[in-house]
Amino acid sequence: KMLRRVLFTALFMGALPSLAEVSQGHISVVLLGATGDLAKKYLWQGLFQLYMDQVSSGHSFTFHGAALTALEPGQRLMFDVLKKLACPPDESPNRCAVLKDQFLKLSQYHQLKSAENYTVLNREIETLLRQEGLKEAGRIFYFSVPPFAYTEIARHINSSCRPPPGAWLRVVLEKPFGHDLESAQQLAAELTSFFREEEMYRVDHYLGKQAVAHILPFRDQNRQFLDPIWNRHHVERVEIVLKETVDAKGRTSFYEQYGVIRDVLQNHLTEALMFLTMELPANVSRAEEVLQRKLQAFQSLRGLEKNSAVLGQYQAYASQVQEELQKAQDYLSTTPTFAGVLVHSDNLRWEGVPFLLTSGKALDERVGYVRVLFKNRAYCTQSETLRDAEHSQCKAKQIIFYIGHGALKTPAVLVSRNLFRPVMPEGSWREAVSQSDLHIFGQPLSDYYVYSPVKERDAYSVLISNIYHGRKDFFITTENLLASWGFWTPLLDSISHQPLRLYPGGVENQHLLDFEMVSGEVAFTLAEPVELLNPHRLMPSDYRTIQSKFRQSPLVSAWSEDLISQLASDIEKTASRTVAHSGQFHLALSGGSSPVVLFQRLARHHYAFPWKHTHIWLVDERCVPLSDIESNFFRLHNHLLQNVRVPYFNVHPMPVHLNQRLCVEEDRGTELYAKEIMALVANASFDLVLLGVGTDGHTASLFPRSENGLEGAQTVVLTESPVKPHQRMSLSLSLINKARQVFVLVLGKGKHDITTLLSRVGHEPRKWPISGVSPSSGQLVWYVDYEALLG
Amino acid sequence: KMLRRVLFTALFMGALPSLAEVSQGHISVVLLGATGDLAKKYLWQGLFQLYMDQVSSGHSFTFHGAALTALEPGQRLMFDVLKKLACPPDESPNRCAVLKDQFLKLSQYHQLKSAENYTVLNREIETLLRQEGLKEAGRIFYFSVPPFAYTEIARHINSSCRPPPGAWLRVVLEKPFGHDLESAQQLAAELTSFFREEEMYRVDHYLGKQAVAHILPFRDQNRQFLDPIWNRHHVERVEIVLKETVDAKGRTSFYEQYGVIRDVLQNHLTEALMFLTMELPANVSRAEEVLQRKLQAFQSLRGLEKNSAVLGQYQAYASQVQEELQKAQDYLSTTPTFAGVLVHSDNLRWEGVPFLLTSGKALDERVGYVRVLFKNRAYCTQSETLRDAEHSQCKAKQIIFYIGHGALKTPAVLVSRNLFRPVMPEGSWREAVSQSDLHIFGQPLSDYYVYSPVKERDAYSVLISNIYHGRKDFFITTENLLASWGFWTPLLDSISHQPLRLYPGGVENQHLLDFEMVSGEVAFTLAEPVELLNPHRLMPSDYRTIQSKFRQSPLVSAWSEDLISQLASDIEKTASRTVAHSGQFHLALSGGSSPVVLFQRLARHHYAFPWKHTHIWLVDERCVPLSDIESNFFRLHNHLLQNVRVPYFNVHPMPVHLNQRLCVEEDRGTELYAKEIMALVANASFDLVLLGVGTDGHTASLFPRSENGLEGAQTVVLTESPVKPHQRMSLSLSLINKARQVFVLVLGKGKHDITTLLSRVGHEPRKWPISGVSPSSGQLVWYVDYEALLG
Repeated sequence: KMLRRVLFTALFMGALPSLAEVSQGHISVVLLGATGDLAKKYLWQGLFQLYMDQVSSGHSFTFHGAALTALEPGQRLMFDVLKKLACPPDESPNRCAVLKDQFLKLSQYHQLKSAENYTVLNREIETLLRQEGLKEAGRIFYFSVPPFAYTEIARHINSSCRPPPGAWLRVVLEKPFGHDLESAQQLAAELTSFFREEEMYRVDHYLGKQAVAHILPFRDQNRQFLDPIWNRHHVERVEIVLKETVDAKGRTSFYEQYGVIRDVLQNHLTEALMFLTMELPANVSRAEEVLQRKLQAFQSLRGLEKNSAVLGQYQAYASQVQEELQKAQDYLSTTPTFAGVLVHSDNLRWEGVPFLLTSGKALDERVGYVRVLFKNRAYCTQSETLRDAEHSQCKAKQIIFYIGHGALKTPAVLVSRNLFRPVMPEGSWREAVSQSDLHIFGQPLSDYYVYSPVKERDAYSVLISNIYHGRKDFFITTENLLASWGFWTPLLDSISHQPLRLYPGGVENQHLLDFEMVSGEVAFTLAEPVELLNPHRLMPSDYRTIQSKFRQSPLVSAWSEDLISQLASDIEKTASRTVAHSGQFHLALSGGSSPVVLFQRLARHHYAFPWKHTHIWLVDERCVPLSDIESNFFRLHNHLLQNVRVPYFNVHPMPVHLNQRLCVEEDRGTELYAKEIMALVANASFDLVLLGVGTDGHTASLFPRSENGLEGAQTVVLTESPVKPHQRMSLSLSLINKARQVFVLVLGKGKHDITTLLSRVGHEPRKWPISGVSPSSGQLVWYVDYEALLG
Repeated sequence: KMLRRVLFTALFMGALPSLAEVSQGHISVVLLGATGDLAKKYLWQGLFQLYMDQVSSGHSFTFHGAALTALEPGQRLMFDVLKKLACPPDESPNRCAVLKDQFLKLSQYHQLKSAENYTVLNREIETLLRQEGLKEAGRIFYFSVPPFAYTEIARHINSSCRPPPGAWLRVVLEKPFGHDLESAQQLAAELTSFFREEEMYRVDHYLGKQAVAHILPFRDQNRQFLDPIWNRHHVERVEIVLKETVDAKGRTSFYEQYGVIRDVLQNHLTEALMFLTMELPANVSRAEEVLQRKLQAFQSLRGLEKNSAVLGQYQAYASQVQEELQKAQDYLSTTPTFAGVLVHSDNLRWEGVPFLLTSGKALDERVGYVRVLFKNRAYCTQSETLRDAEHSQCKAKQIIFYIGHGALKTPAVLVSRNLFRPVMPEGSWREAVSQSDLHIFGQPLSDYYVYSPVKERDAYSVLISNIYHGRKDFFITTENLLASWGFWTPLLDSISHQPLRLYPGGVENQHLLDFEMVSGEVAFTLAEPVELLNPHRLMPSDYRTIQSKFRQSPLVSAWSEDLISQLASDIEKTASRTVAHSGQFHLALSGGSSPVVLFQRLARHHYAFPWKHTHIWLVDERCVPLSDIESNFFRLHNHLLQNVRVPYFNVHPMPVHLNQRLCVEEDRGTELYAKEIMALVANASFDLVLLGVGTDGHTASLFPRSENGLEGAQTVVLTESPVKPHQRMSLSLSLINKARQVFVLVLGKGKHDITTLLSRVGHEPRKWPISGVSPSSGQLVWYVDYEALLG
C-alpha cells in the first residue's frame, strides 16, 4: 500500500520517463525522536525540503518517525507536527501543497522501544520493497535523542536494521559527543563497535549555516586574491563570534553540565576556525582531502593554557540553577556562560596571528560572524577628507562571513572594496545592494562588496541534503571530534576552578566583558574585578612569592606556576642586563623535565628576551644522537629553540656524537666542548647556569660518588648515570662554580625529601653533588616550589 | 658711543640694581647675511625676541648685521628690515616700542668681505668694550650665507674675531651641511680646523618647532605610562610627515641639486625619528646624555635599500627646471620632489616597527606631524553602537605631535583618551577645549586629550634662545650629522637613476602617491604606473617565462623577478614530492649573491614548504668563521634559516672552522663533511643541488683549472679562488653529478658573456667548470634571466 504511494509520487511529477530505466532505488529515512523539539523545529521541515528537492531525482522515499511513545498518541503527535510543515517562499503554492500531501502519505510513525520493535521495522521496510521489486539504495537513521540513548539504539540498528548488501547505512548523530576527551573517546569506541566510520554522520549544525559552509568554497574560488594575503604577514587578527541575547533559563539542567565552551566553542567555533586555517586541498569538493587537511590544521594548534581564556557568568544564572536544579541558596555554579579564548596556530602560515573565539549568553545582541581583519600596510598621502572612499588603501580591509542575525539580519559574505571583488557562485549568492547607512565593523556598509544567499536555507535542511548526497566533509569525523576534544580538554581542566566575572546581562554589560591580548594571553580590560565568583578561593596572584634563605643563599618559593613565571622573568632580566653591559649573554641550561615548562614560558611570554645576543650551552647531555628524543638538546630544541630566534652560531650542543659514535673518549668531545667554552665565554664564566636537583642529590650529570667532575679542575667530563642512558657528558662542579649566577630549580612533591635533607647538610659534594654548588664569585639562587619545600 | 647705549638700556629697564654687581658680561651677535631672505623672515625677529627676553638678564648686547654689500646700501637694506620688526601679541605695545627703539640703536651694519673687514670688526668690538671696562661674555656668529662661503668666513672668524680668553665663541651654521656623506665629511673637516666642536651650533629649525622640541620632554614626563608601551609589542607604526602645498618654483637652482630627501628627510624628519626611537637618558636636560643616546639610536637603524623608498616628481617640475636653469626642452630631471621611506630600527625595542618618513612638494595640504599608532589588542564584546566612546579599548590609540598647519592650524600634542591623560608642563602647554567636529586621523577631536602651546613661538626664536643658553642638544653635532649622512647616502646613491612617479600636484594627486609596505619594502599602491619617468623601461610582468633548451637541458627564462618566483615554486614542488616519497629532502645550496633573492622569496612566500623535513647542505663555503658576514652560511642564515623552521640537526654548514683555525688540511674538514653526507644522504645523492655560474665559468667553488674537485672521485675538496677570501671548501663535480636534480641559476647582464659562451662550448670542465655539470642519472635545469640570456 505504502509503496504504491511511492510510485504514484514519482509518476505524478512527470519528471521521470519510465521507472524501470531510471530508478535510483529507494531511501528509507528513520527519524528517531520524531516528536522532540529539534524534530519539530527543524528536522521534519528539513526532510520535507529534501523530499521537495529530490522528488525528481529518481530516488523514492519513505519517512519513518520513531519515538518511545506508543503508536496511537505518537502518531497523533507526529502528524500534528507534519501538518504544520511550511512551504518555502520560492516554491509554487500548488506544487508545494501536492508535495506536502504526498510527504504525509509517505510518512509513518513507529514506536521503537524494544529490540523486537526494530526487527519489525526492518521487516516492514524489506517486505514493502520486495513486494514492488524495488532496489534499496540506503537507509538514514537520524538520532534526535539524548546521548545516553545512543548506545542502545545503535546496537539495535546494527543488529536488526542494516540494509542488505549494496545499499548504504547512514546514521546521523547530534551533539553533545561527549563531555571531554575521555568521554568522547569512550562514546566513539562504542559507536565504532556498531558502525563503520563512513556510516556515521555527526552533525554540527554550524557547518550547515550558509556563511560557514561557504568559507572553504570562498577560499577556493578566490585563491588568486587570497593566496598572497592569507597568512601571518597580512592577517592582523581573526574573530570568530557567536553572541546570544537569550540566557540558559529553562535549560540549566543541560547547561550546568556543559557551559559555553563545550556548548559552542569546542564545536561550532572550532569548526569555523578549521575552515579558516586549514591548508586548501587541491580539490575542495573531495571530502577526503578536506577532512585530511582539517585534521592537519588541528595538529598545528598551540596548546591552550589557563590564561588563554577569560570567563564570565551572567548574574541571574546562579539563581536559575538553584531553582531549576533544586540547589541550596548558597550553591555557586562554576559554569561559564561567557568565554573569550585566544587561539594560535603554530604553523608558518599563521604563527603569531591571534584567533579570538568568543561566545556568551545574555549579551547585548544576537549575532554570529567570522571576521578576518587584515593589517593596514598603506600610507595614504592624500589627506583623509580628500580621499576617495572606495579606493583608499588606508581604510580597514576585512573579509566577514556573517552567519546571521545582528544588524544585517541575514547571512552574508562581506569583502572590503579596497581588497578585491570576490568571485561568488552566481546561482547561490548574489550581490546585495547597499540598503542603508548601516555601519558594520566600523565602516559603512557601502565600503564592502556584500553578498547574500539567493535562497536562505536553514542549516538543518542544508545538512539533510548533504547527508543525502553523502558529503562527509560537512560532518564531524571521529578523528576530527577527538582532535577537537584533545585541544579543548586541557583548558577545560585548568579552568574548572577559575574565577568567573559576573555580568548583569544585556546592554548593561557595558565594557565589563571587553578583553585584551597581552603577551599571548587574554585578560579582561577592566582590571578591577567588579564581582568575581568564588571570592573565597585564593588566586595564585594573591600569594606573594616568598623570599628567604635556603642553604645560606636566596630562596624564591611559590606554587610552581608562579615560580616558573618568576624564574623566567628573572632570567630575562639577567639576560637584558648582561647584554646591555657586555653585548652577549651566555646561558647554560640543564636537561630533565622540570625546565620544559620554563622553556615554554620563555618561548611564549618573553618577547623582549635578547635571544639574538644569547648563547645557549648545555649543562649536561645524554650520550645519544642530538635528534634522539632522549637527548636533552632535542627537548631544548623542541620546547625553546625552534620557537625563538637564537642564531645558529650561538647554539652549542654538547659534542656527544662524533665520528658516528657516542661519547668515546678518544674522540675528545669533552676537550672540544671545553675549548669552545674557552674560546667564547670570557674566563669560562657563564653568565647564568640553570641547574636542577635529582632525588639522589645529583645535579647536572654529576651523580653521587662520580669519579669525574666533582673534584679537580677539569671543566667538561664524561660521567655514568645510575639510570639509562648511563653515559653522560656534563659540566664539572669547578666550571659551574665559576658562573656569575647559578639558579637551581626544584619542583614537585617528589623532591620534598631531598629538599629537606639539603636544608640540613653542609658541603658534601661526593655524597650530594648539588651541595658542592657554590659559585666562587657569583650568586646562587634557589627556586623551590611549595610542593618541594613544604611537601 | 655705542656702549653708552648699551648701558643706558640696562639702566632704563630698572630691572638691575647696579651694574658693577650683576653684569653677566656683554654678548656680541654677528649676523652674516643680514639682508638675506632667512634673516629678513626669521632671524632678525628671533634676535629681537632674544633681546626682549634677555634684556633684564644681566647681559648686555650689541647686534652686528653683516653682508658683502657696501656700507651705505647695506645699512639701508638692513634697517628697512629692522624697522618692520613685529611686536609679539603677548608683549605690551609700549614696552615693545621702547625695546624696539633700543634694539635699533644697538644694531649696526658692517660690510664683511676682506680679511681686513673682519679685523676691523674685531677691533671695534674690543675697543668699545674696553672703553667701558665691561667684561666680554661671548660672541655669536650666525652664518646665514650659502655653504660655499662657509670656509672663507670660518677662516676669518678663527683668525681675527675670536673673543679673548674666558669669553665663548658660538658659530651658528645653517644647512645644507653637505650633499652626501663624503661632502659632509669634507665640510666638517674644514670647519673642525677652525672651530672646536662645542663652538659649532648647526641649526635644524625643526628642533625649534614646539611640538618636535616637546617629544623628549613628553617621553620623560610620561615615563610611567609610556614605559610599558613604547616598544614593538605595542606600537603598530610611526608616521613622520611633512607635506607642502608649494612647489619648488623659483628655487629650482637649489632644489635640483638636493631634492626632497636631502632637503627634508635627511635632516628634519630624521631628527624627529631620533627623538622617538632613542633610549631616554636618565636626565633629559643633560645635553651630553641626550646627544649620546641619539647617536646610539642612529647605530640601530637598519640600512636602507633601493626598495625602501617610493619617489615622485610633480609634473610641472621639469618645465620649471628647464626654464629656470636654461635647460633644453627634453631635459629630464631625476630629482625627487616626493618621497616615502620605510625605516626600521633593529634594536629590541623597535624591531619590526615600521617608521614611515614622508615628505613632498605640490601635495594636497600643508601639514607636519609625528604620529605614533598603537596596536589594537582588545576585543570589545559590546556591539559598536552600544559602546561608550571615551572608554572603548577598541578605538584607535595614538599619540600625535602635531607640528603645525593642517586642519588644527596650530602646534599640538594629542593623546587618545583611551590611552592615558598625559602629564604636560603647565606653564608652556595647556589643554585645548575641543572646538569642533573636526576629525584627526580617523577620529573626532573629542577622542583625544589635546594640548597646545600657551604661547606659540617661531622655531628660529626658540633656537636663538637655545643658542644663547648654550643648549647644544637642540643642534646637530658633527657626529650626529655624519651619522645621518651615513644612513641616507647609500639610499641616495642607489636611487639616483630610479624611476619617479609623476604626479599632477595638489588634490589632483588623488591616490597616486599612496604607498604600501610589503615584506620590509615599499611600493606605490596603484600598480599600473599611470605615468613614470623613464617610461621606456619595460615592466617584468609584461613578459611570460619562456621554456626551451640550453646546453641540451631544459631552460627556464624570464625577467629575474618572475624567474626567481618560478624557481622557488619548482624547488617547493620538488621538496614536497620528495618528502612525500622518502620522508626527507636533501637540499644543497650555493653561496654568492644571486640566491639571496631566492632565499627571501622562499622565506616569505612558501608557507607550505616542508622545512621540518628538509636538510640544508652547503655547496661551497669561504674559509671564514660561520658568523663572519663573508660566510656563505651566514648569508643563508640571515636570509633564509632564521625565517623558517629547519630543525637544528638538519642544518649542515661546512666545517671550515675547526680547532680555532680555518680550512687547515690536517683538521680534515673535507673528510668530516664527506662522512656526514655519506651518513645521512642515501647514496650521497642530493635531492636537489642549486648552483650558480661565475663570469669565469666557475660553479660551486670550483674555479677554472682547479687542482681539486674537477676530476676524480673525491667528494668534498679545498680549493683556491682567484678573489678573496682565496681559500674555499666545495662539493666536487663528481658529487654534484650524483644529484637527482641540479638547478643552475644565472642572473643579470654581467653574466651575458659567459652565458653566450656556454651556449657554444662542450664539456670542458678544466676551462669552464660549469660545463662539467652533467648529472649521471639526475636532471639538470637552467634558470637564466633575460638579461643574462639576451644581454
